[in-house]
Amino acid sequence: MNTFGNLFRITSFGESHGKALGVIIDNLPPNIKLCETDIQAELDRRKPGQSSVTTPRKEADKCEILSGVFEGKTTGTPLCTIVYNKNQKSKDYSNIKDIFRPSHADFGYLKKYGLRDYRGGGRSSARETIARVIGGAIAKKILKEKFGINIYGFTQSLGKEVFTAVDKDFIEENPLRMADKKVFATVLQKVEALKNAGDSIGGVAEIHIENPPAGLGNPVFGKLEALLAQAMMSVPAVKFFEMGEGRTICTQKGSVANDPFVAKGDLVSSERNVNGGVLGGISTGDDIYFRVGIKPTSSISLPQKSANIHGKNVDLEIHGRHDPVLLPRAIPVLEAMAALVLLDSIMLQKAQCDLF
Amino acid sequence: MNTFGNLFRITSFGESHGKALGVIIDNLPPNIKLCETDIQAELDRRKPGQSSVTTPRKEADKCEILSGVFEGKTTGTPLCTIVYNKNQKSKDYSNIKDIFRPSHADFGYLKKYGLRDYRGGGRSSARETIARVIGGAIAKKILKEKFGINIYGFTQSLGKEVFTAVDKDFIEENPLRMADKKVFATVLQKVEALKNAGDSIGGVAEIHIENPPAGLGNPVFGKLEALLAQAMMSVPAVKFFEMGEGRTICTQKGSVANDPFVAKGDLVSSERNVNGGVLGGISTGDDIYFRVGIKPTSSISLPQKSANIHGKNVDLEIHGRHDPVLLPRAIPVLEAMAALVLLDSIMLQKAQCDLF
Amino acid sequence: MNTFGNLFRITSFGESHGKALGVIIDNLPPNIKLCETDIQAELDRRKPGQSSVTTPRKEADKCEILSGVFEGKTTGTPLCTIVYNKNQKSKDYSNIKDIFRPSHADFGYLKKYGLRDYRGGGRSSARETIARVIGGAIAKKILKEKFGINIYGFTQSLGKEVFTAVDKDFIEENPLRMADKKVFATVLQKVEALKNAGDSIGGVAEIHIENPPAGLGNPVFGKLEALLAQAMMSVPAVKFFEMGEGRTICTQKGSVANDPFVAKGDLVSSERNVNGGVLGGISTGDDIYFRVGIKPTSSISLPQKSANIHGKNVDLEIHGRHDPVLLPRAIPVLEAMAALVLLDSIMLQKAQCDLF
Amino acid sequence: MNTFGNLFRITSFGESHGKALGVIIDNLPPNIKLCETDIQAELDRRKPGQSSVTTPRKEADKCEILSGVFEGKTTGTPLCTIVYNKNQKSKDYSNIKDIFRPSHADFGYLKKYGLRDYRGGGRSSARETIARVIGGAIAKKILKEKFGINIYGFTQSLGKEVFTAVDKDFIEENPLRMADKKVFATVLQKVEALKNAGDSIGGVAEIHIENPPAGLGNPVFGKLEALLAQAMMSVPAVKFFEMGEGRTICTQKGSVANDPFVAKGDLVSSERNVNGGVLGGISTGDDIYFRVGIKPTSSISLPQKSANIHGKNVDLEIHGRHDPVLLPRAIPVLEAMAALVLLDSIMLQKAQCDLF
Repeated sequence: MNTFGNLFRITSFGESHGKALGVIIDNLPPNIKLCETDIQAELDRRKPGQSSVTTPRKEADKCEILSGVFEGKTTGTPLCTIVYNKNQKSKDYSNIKDIFRPSHADFGYLKKYGLRDYRGGGRSSARETIARVIGGAIAKKILKEKFGINIYGFTQSLGKEVFTAVDKDFIEENPLRMADKKVFATVLQKVEALKNAGDSIGGVAEIHIENPPAGLGNPVFGKLEALLAQAMMSVPAVKFFEMGEGRTICTQKGSVANDPFVAKGDLVSSERNVNGGVLGGISTGDDIYFRVGIKPTSSISLPQKSANIHGKNVDLEIHGRHDPVLLPRAIPVLEAMAALVLLDSIMLQKAQCDLF
Repeated sequence: MNTFGNLFRITSFGESHGKALGVIIDNLPPNIKLCETDIQAELDRRKPGQSSVTTPRKEADKCEILSGVFEGKTTGTPLCTIVYNKNQKSKDYSNIKDIFRPSHADFGYLKKYGLRDYRGGGRSSARETIARVIGGAIAKKILKEKFGINIYGFTQSLGKEVFTAVDKDFIEENPLRMADKKVFATVLQKVEALKNAGDSIGGVAEIHIENPPAGLGNPVFGKLEALLAQAMMSVPAVKFFEMGEGRTICTQKGSVANDPFVAKGDLVSSERNVNGGVLGGISTGDDIYFRVGIKPTSSISLPQKSANIHGKNVDLEIHGRHDPVLLPRAIPVLEAMAALVLLDSIMLQKAQCDLF
Repeated sequence: MNTFGNLFRITSFGESHGKALGVIIDNLPPNIKLCETDIQAELDRRKPGQSSVTTPRKEADKCEILSGVFEGKTTGTPLCTIVYNKNQKSKDYSNIKDIFRPSHADFGYLKKYGLRDYRGGGRSSARETIARVIGGAIAKKILKEKFGINIYGFTQSLGKEVFTAVDKDFIEENPLRMADKKVFATVLQKVEALKNAGDSIGGVAEIHIENPPAGLGNPVFGKLEALLAQAMMSVPAVKFFEMGEGRTICTQKGSVANDPFVAKGDLVSSERNVNGGVLGGISTGDDIYFRVGIKPTSSISLPQKSANIHGKNVDLEIHGRHDPVLLPRAIPVLEAMAALVLLDSIMLQKAQCDLF
Repeated sequence: MNTFGNLFRITSFGESHGKALGVIIDNLPPNIKLCETDIQAELDRRKPGQSSVTTPRKEADKCEILSGVFEGKTTGTPLCTIVYNKNQKSKDYSNIKDIFRPSHADFGYLKKYGLRDYRGGGRSSARETIARVIGGAIAKKILKEKFGINIYGFTQSLGKEVFTAVDKDFIEENPLRMADKKVFATVLQKVEALKNAGDSIGGVAEIHIENPPAGLGNPVFGKLEALLAQAMMSVPAVKFFEMGEGRTICTQKGSVANDPFVAKGDLVSSERNVNGGVLGGISTGDDIYFRVGIKPTSSISLPQKSANIHGKNVDLEIHGRHDPVLLPRAIPVLEAMAALVLLDSIMLQKAQCDLF
């Protein structure tokens, strides 16, 4: 299914080397001021060619709103935004069209559909995330302007190195979207070295949702952490999802892990917020945060082995221009998905619990 | 939302101390032989009072099919199965009805709904998982009998201890659902000691789906790992989800993490299956496996601090009878959710890609 | 699919001669005062055995709330209500178990599912409408108490006779749910004569929704008239749906059919409301009304011809006790479906357009 | 909601005078040969400027496939097709931007959204049906090539005149899509006279689905007639829906209306098929047919009265170029909607009942 969300719904289309990628946003609240610049700002955060540690491919990724906005405001009818593909070198991929690239989706796609768009991975390319970022840009704008909710993310670890210092202001100032200013320079060097070696590296992103209302999420199947997990695990290359300090908690005794509520003046909140702002599937009003593991870029330049569609084992070299680390460009995508989940949850909450 | 699945759909109802819990299974294939015994076998695997390391509460959890079966076969119309609550001591909970128990859903529920069924957690109680196990029992039966797919799970770690040996035959023979026979006795002693101390412990479950077809799952938002993540994170007390060797992969270089396809005779498969049987959201035909982190039981007997609905900080003692470790009884629930996702994915695949 | 609604969602189960029928209502607003009496009042309006022109079968159709209500109020979690079947004479149907009854669902069910619950039609029996009436009773209560919206229906025609006078107070005072007091006695005699002759008669119901807000419904696929049409055509025995004066309008010239808006003081409304309160799929604030055609009861006592499952033509006599006219008992069902559509539309409207 | 269908799903966007209209088709079976010509043929059947009885507006309505097709075949990933708007004279509408046109959606849209795209009705314009026709063209192709199912429609009545003769070959040869060759010339004259007088006329379309499989549709809420009713009533200007001979049946006695099954050789079918090929919501294998009432074009050139957004009553003249009768161009849209419902039902049937 290429539709995401219950009420704030996005439906996505497009392949890496097709004519265009885009998204329809349905059920959008009307009367929101919106123009292409609002969306472009987020697209620019994920576009390639930004730095020494992203692919040097140049894509303008310029968006165009085709419907749903009239005289500068959303009309409440479906908003379609499109990005035409410009800089697509199809020949880069022709030498691997019969090969199942290691850790890529090629094999499954062929088994599923009986055919496969081999140009840059087709629909399995991370270029599909353009649609998510467009939808997320609009959701973020509404969350911020109407509900005072802010979403941001940063690179929490790369390889085995976990970065502990968090300087929020630094995140958007460095090409790795790290929040740890002190170690950044050294880490950048290592990543550049990997890139020069034709290799790549995995890592973990941490996403924060500041100032969420309490009461979001639904018991049972629609728990907020379940919706966030689906949203995050649906992003290409994501391999694990951890709510709050989830991994640590699962190694602890109850007497250690339990997080008491504390009353301070009029406010009741969790003492340590180790559960990441959600308990029993419902937001508590504490800041929501979670971690998302992103594997190393599968497309590396180093020689590899694999099999082809004729059932033969082959030696393989992937040319083309790839990110040595996916995290910096994945973070705007993860933020976008978080924004979609949040706004959808707010709309559901309004409809059910704030109806009168 | 209390409905799960696109085609094989379950809709759940019931509270811990209400009259009954149950589930409607919609879109069930017709002509499947089915009786209450098929379902009861799975319910018995999750019911309380089974051993020294589960709560001594006695619940028969006896299921009754109310519709959808005629002359021993499914009719294709909605199958409702119900479990009446028997052994509910409401007074156990009256002393905490105004308190937000640490790491429980109480606070969020009150904020969301403006009222709260405080008897045993109401809808937030893990008793709701009865509905999942019923649905999963039917899905498992179909998967096994019609598709040769087998699902099982075991306790992979408790606290900081990770168990490495896997003896599948041992899992259902021990009350901790461990697969590591050698260390079991020592671990059991530790868990019993925790129980006697009024404490609890977290851990990790590992779930395996043997012999899945290739091609399941949908690109983009319906990736198989995304659906599994939502399913697992929706189970009470789950704090993280890891696909295959996801945590390890995210610390590696691409040249190390990449898993080549290998042709052996007619068969192409992943060399090491570190991605857990799913690539780009689509199953590869390799066994699917993933890990699910479960926090320690929040209801412990040790004295705790917390706040109440009047905004006062209070001392708190939770009486009642609780599992010192949730994993053994959670595993059948996780298996059930995996079965629901798999069967639903098979139905979607049939409808779209095997239509003619 | 046995689920209806986007936000105010009901999921239905049960067969005519199974153990029970029931419904889960999901996404119900919390904090609504609700008890079984509220629901029973509507169930009593549709139950059999009420008069000389309904089947003499006695069914208490007593409902029991199993979940979702705590201390007399809805909790916001799924509300399950059940009606156990009591007076089921399975032997009445055994003589026709191999026959495809004329104008009944038997043939299609067998073709679809490969088996068929022949006891009283199984899932195709109009007894399934109990679930709709339960859901509708709750929706009606919320519509009335929170939004001042009233829904009622009456028998607008029987056979070829169209009744023109409308006395709302008379509707619930007569067993045919007619609004035309003057002709009622004559019509009743005719219907009783049909019943004695073992025959039945079709007719048309007219449903009114008084005082709806403007702005409900969604353009394109979710037009309010489209949702109402689906809702009504999903009720057993319904054969046509007409919005407002739809049939007349479709025979007219635009210059005659067009209905100008008229400003009176602060209020703008349609001059004649011939479109039934909906234009372009969106409610205008004028009263909503539509007509629903209900065929004559297919189960008649007169001898008939048909075919059986062995491909033989047969003579057939249907014993049992049937309504000579379905309308009086169908009207509460149609009202219930209208209430479900309305409340769902209000919730959608709140979530999208009244979000801030 | 701007998405239609459970499995074969279309999501639509675009306004009358926006940049473009289009549709995403999701869950499309892979490996179907498809090109723009396949779609264009159906679009050409609905486009304006075809004859003396359609609007003289010229719109090429040329479609472009943006995704989902690779090397001439569907890939199984979302297919987006777009039609850019070319011949839009926005000034035609500026004089009525503050007026609620009689029997138009203007008033409801403003009430719903708080703002309104007044250019040609914006999203409420029948130009949105382009998206339906695109989706339907693909569904029709699959139905025909893979299942031997044929769908066609014709003008069954205009004004008070009902046409009884049916010559299928004549339908696409005349601009009114009439099937009654004998009366056509006279009717055409009348329609041309209405057009010259600045007026319009309503009528009824009859749609046939030839050679459907038995067993389609779902009991209860997903009855095939309910899905068809929603589909048809969602098309602009539709005011009633009648299944088979529904209106006649509802005036009859059961002994007259009942339609016996008849066995002929191996085949069992309905004797007269008065129920239109569906009983109890499930197709019987008999041809499916139904009627759809279409009101006269609301945009007429004759002077009218109405109210404006300032609450004043006004005199009104609608300039611009409009169809004197909507039916000829609506029929391809109704066929498209029927095709979407049918293919979706086949996919659902496959997934549930033909799974093994």
